[in-house]
Amino acid sequence: MLLKRLLVGLPLKTAQAVHERLSKRLALAVFSSDALSSVAYATEEILLVLILAGAAAVSWSIPISLMIVLLLTILTLSYQQIIYEYPLGGGAYIVARSNIGELSGLTAAASLMIDYVLTVSVSVAAGIAALTSAVPGLFAHRQALCLAAILLVLVVNLRGVRESGRIFAVPTYFFISMILVMLAAGSFQILTGQPGRDLVPSGNRPAPVVEGLTLFLLLRAFSSGCTALTGVEVISNGVSAFKPPEPRNASLTMAGMAVILGTLFIGISALAYHYGVLPREDETVVSQIARTAFGGGPLYYLVQVATMLILILAANSAFAGFPRLASILARDSYMPHQMAMMGDRLVFSNGVMILGAFSCLLIVLFDGDTHALIPLYAVGVFLSFTLSQAGMVRRWLAKKGPHWRKKLIVNGVGAVTTGLATLIIATTKFVHGAWIVIVLIPLIIMWFRAIHAHYVAVAEQIALERDHRPPPPRRNTVVIPISGVNRAVVRAVDYARTHSSDIRAVLVNVEKEETALTEIKWAQWGCGVHLVVLPSPYRSVLGSLLDYIEELLKKDPDGWVTVVIPEILPARWWQNILHNQRALMLKAALLFKERVILTDVPFHLER
Amino acid sequence: MLLKRLLVGLPLKTAQAVHERLSKRLALAVFSSDALSSVAYATEEILLVLILAGAAAVSWSIPISLMIVLLLTILTLSYQQIIYEYPLGGGAYIVARSNIGELSGLTAAASLMIDYVLTVSVSVAAGIAALTSAVPGLFAHRQALCLAAILLVLVVNLRGVRESGRIFAVPTYFFISMILVMLAAGSFQILTGQPGRDLVPSGNRPAPVVEGLTLFLLLRAFSSGCTALTGVEVISNGVSAFKPPEPRNASLTMAGMAVILGTLFIGISALAYHYGVLPREDETVVSQIARTAFGGGPLYYLVQVATMLILILAANSAFAGFPRLASILARDSYMPHQMAMMGDRLVFSNGVMILGAFSCLLIVLFDGDTHALIPLYAVGVFLSFTLSQAGMVRRWLAKKGPHWRKKLIVNGVGAVTTGLATLIIATTKFVHGAWIVIVLIPLIIMWFRAIHAHYVAVAEQIALERDHRPPPPRRNTVVIPISGVNRAVVRAVDYARTHSSDIRAVLVNVEKEETALTEIKWAQWGCGVHLVVLPSPYRSVLGSLLDYIEELLKKDPDGWVTVVIPEILPARWWQNILHNQRALMLKAALLFKERVILTDVPFHLER
Repeated sequence: MLLKRLLVGLPLKTAQAVHERLSKRLALAVFSSDALSSVAYATEEILLVLILAGAAAVSWSIPISLMIVLLLTILTLSYQQIIYEYPLGGGAYIVARSNIGELSGLTAAASLMIDYVLTVSVSVAAGIAALTSAVPGLFAHRQALCLAAILLVLVVNLRGVRESGRIFAVPTYFFISMILVMLAAGSFQILTGQPGRDLVPSGNRPAPVVEGLTLFLLLRAFSSGCTALTGVEVISNGVSAFKPPEPRNASLTMAGMAVILGTLFIGISALAYHYGVLPREDETVVSQIARTAFGGGPLYYLVQVATMLILILAANSAFAGFPRLASILARDSYMPHQMAMMGDRLVFSNGVMILGAFSCLLIVLFDGDTHALIPLYAVGVFLSFTLSQAGMVRRWLAKKGPHWRKKLIVNGVGAVTTGLATLIIATTKFVHGAWIVIVLIPLIIMWFRAIHAHYVAVAEQIALERDHRPPPPRRNTVVIPISGVNRAVVRAVDYARTHSSDIRAVLVNVEKEETALTEIKWAQWGCGVHLVVLPSPYRSVLGSLLDYIEELLKKDPDGWVTVVIPEILPARWWQNILHNQRALMLKAALLFKERVILTDVPFHLER
Repeated sequence: MLLKRLLVGLPLKTAQAVHERLSKRLALAVFSSDALSSVAYATEEILLVLILAGAAAVSWSIPISLMIVLLLTILTLSYQQIIYEYPLGGGAYIVARSNIGELSGLTAAASLMIDYVLTVSVSVAAGIAALTSAVPGLFAHRQALCLAAILLVLVVNLRGVRESGRIFAVPTYFFISMILVMLAAGSFQILTGQPGRDLVPSGNRPAPVVEGLTLFLLLRAFSSGCTALTGVEVISNGVSAFKPPEPRNASLTMAGMAVILGTLFIGISALAYHYGVLPREDETVVSQIARTAFGGGPLYYLVQVATMLILILAANSAFAGFPRLASILARDSYMPHQMAMMGDRLVFSNGVMILGAFSCLLIVLFDGDTHALIPLYAVGVFLSFTLSQAGMVRRWLAKKGPHWRKKLIVNGVGAVTTGLATLIIATTKFVHGAWIVIVLIPLIIMWFRAIHAHYVAVAEQIALERDHRPPPPRRNTVVIPISGVNRAVVRAVDYARTHSSDIRAVLVNVEKEETALTEIKWAQWGCGVHLVVLPSPYRSVLGSLLDYIEELLKKDPDGWVTVVIPEILPARWWQNILHNQRALMLKAALLFKERVILTDVPFHLER
């Protein structure tokens, strides 16, 4: 408990919940760390695929990057329409569920949950890669560093991150500035005619040709690059946090974010091509570009720090998204209800813990390697994009309203392109890891449905019927099983006497002498409670007791039987093996009997 | 349960306990399988040590065997005196505890418990060795065969072995006869001048000289041979099972057993020497002798079967001894009391299970190898012999009585010789495994004492003082925590109403609308029970409830508070994760509160 308070802080009152309204500039910082941070690895992932077809194939990175920026434009336009339609937050689960149906909603929810876990793992892995690129000595410890980073974010989130935009603004704008400075420095070199390719750090091995430059390979490279678009939907979830007019401000912020994201991404891809940077195991592409542009000075280190910070901020954003989605699902009874319980720091702590655990698991399974995690990542994101857009298409068809044809076309184009991208990603990345996600999604949906079915069944079973009346009062026979007379038994009798009902102490006669002795003691200590002595031909104390209780239940088919068990509670846990074996067996035997209520009256030992 | 009934049989009535009185001939069969079966491995163990000093040293096996027979004579005379003094059974624990003191008694008890476990392991391992000697193909499976044999004996003992001497008589007398026939065949060969050494099966490798023929080595060989004497004390535990006059018959039976044991042992040692049999890993010495004497025909196989049967019978005898000793210790509060509970088949089932578990563990740890287990075996046996004899010495000194000087001398010689043997065994076998036992004995004694101290402390704490009166009746406030109104809650209220006392349903106000709704429903369904609505600034349902209960306890410093918890019991175990999280936390928080009594009113879901 003390440790918890130290780590997590004192409980907060409900009234302490702060709802800061964000200006466009702050909102961009709060909501776009996930999307913007993707540029730290997207170009590298494209190159990693192209290089398989030899160094010459690398030039395809530019058209592929342009394709992805086109996709970004389509997505932005589509999501701007969602922002106007769902000003209270339009996550893929809500849009798909309300416009298409339960299955689509759950599919979107399952994809999103997987994506949140991957956002944490990929972002942290890439963030630590930025660190180990700058400090190669740490490369061997990257897995431990990843886990430490997740734990840090976890604890911060258990404390509860207040929506204070300023904290987010610093690293986001710091990252944007550093990358823009880097791009400017690179462009200056190009314009002044400096021979970029000669500046590339030595150590890049010549790329052997492993595969032919097929369409499939190009599509695979495109799929890898699509990771640049992960997180662009975040703003559409947080419309209500903007200053009024909320939809307009959110829509404008989204456009701004898209412009920045497109610029940074194209810029990095272009510079990488210009410098002839190729992916290396121990240094990221962005690190190589920065090192080449700045020659390894303090500006280089600032780029690396900024990259690491925004990636960890991106991981942090999943810690806001996952628990919120889980709580919405829990309220709809698709997740255990305790996911919707707010902890004493106004945080859905269960969701935070679960996300932390799963992302740590992924880091360990994939050894903290960004490239190994990437094939799992984009497929879920694009599936949820597609379901959102398809949901909007259904919405326009059903709702119509002003300009609905134009809006239908925008979302229609969005749905078709993202659907196509989803297919491409699922196909080209299937063997590299996307199959895991494709297998997991239906399993998670089945799990959602099993939980839902259970809660529905429970609600039906415990529902009160309107025309029923409360039952008439019933009788209660209290049974106190004893094996002798001692302070624990006297205490139990003392408690049982507060029942007005018929009370009987019950002794099973195993040894005649002991029974006689107990009967004598009972006269003094029994407080007038009737003592029943049961015969036991088989020495089974348990059997005789159960028979007796069964008889009582039969005699009064409406009444309750309360079994008050005098239980000795030892002071130390290991001493439990020396006590209460019979009480335990009795409880196990009575647990599933209707109308039998067990009551322990503990007697606490002090030593 | 059905499986249990199939394996173990229907329960037996106390009155069904049969107490057959045994004739001397049957008693010998019942009580001496442990002792007699030792000859199956004792000679081999002597040879295994001597062979280290080369083949010539093997001739020392004859004088060593004679020494052991001398020790047997002394032991028999000493134990005959115990039989007369303790006609109700004079185990080492009882003799040592009543004449010397608690520590000696517990030391004897600890040694005996270890010995019972080793009796099972060693006997079964040797029995399976007899089998694999005859059927070499089974040698690779000896560990599994050992475990199967233990399980068989375990099940037989859980069914409860009725003391029916006839069942035991067959294998015991079969074994005695077969070994005598084997000895006769061997003697005939010697007398007719057949060159025994030439008959030895080929394959005995020449013995390299590993150690010098030191006194230490001879003493070590002697220690190994002392395992022949394990089990000779068994008759002294079972005096009450003899026909009257019990002590006389028991004493005569003991003498008869000693004569048979001595004859078989010396005979086997002599034949082994005559044939020049040396220990082999895959065939026992007795098997080699039998094969040589009978030339491998059906008589050979009968010897092996008889050996295996009597060894398993010896293991069986430990299953009678261990649970009985454990029950005596439990009655004296040195073992958990449940060790003294008879199962429904009139057997101390807990003791039987524990002995089975530990002996299986030993078989697995020592890979079912007799030779590896032997060094652990004799030290505990001889320690208990010594303590018995020393106890008798103290008894004669204190009690005196007719011929006490003569009796003192007999037990004195017994105590000194067994004490000396214990020292020799502990020293020479220390590094080979005896250290385990020497470490274990004090640990077990500490455990006995910890249990005893605990039971004494409990008895003191729960004892009723003679001059106290029962407490005056106290008030009871019943609290029903609810979070809504449903059938489970109505059921709990229905139950609580049987209490005459002050009843309050308690609702924690987390969400205003829900609270208002519940209040309306309560008017219809609350059966007139007062509904208390608690504020909850921190949303902590648990915290508010605990505060409320604390307040009730303070208000009435004598009264009870009963917390009636409406609990939904799911139909399947995994559904528990979807329910009762709050009830569980509430129970955990209230478990150690004085004067607070928890009562679950379960509502059983059907699906």
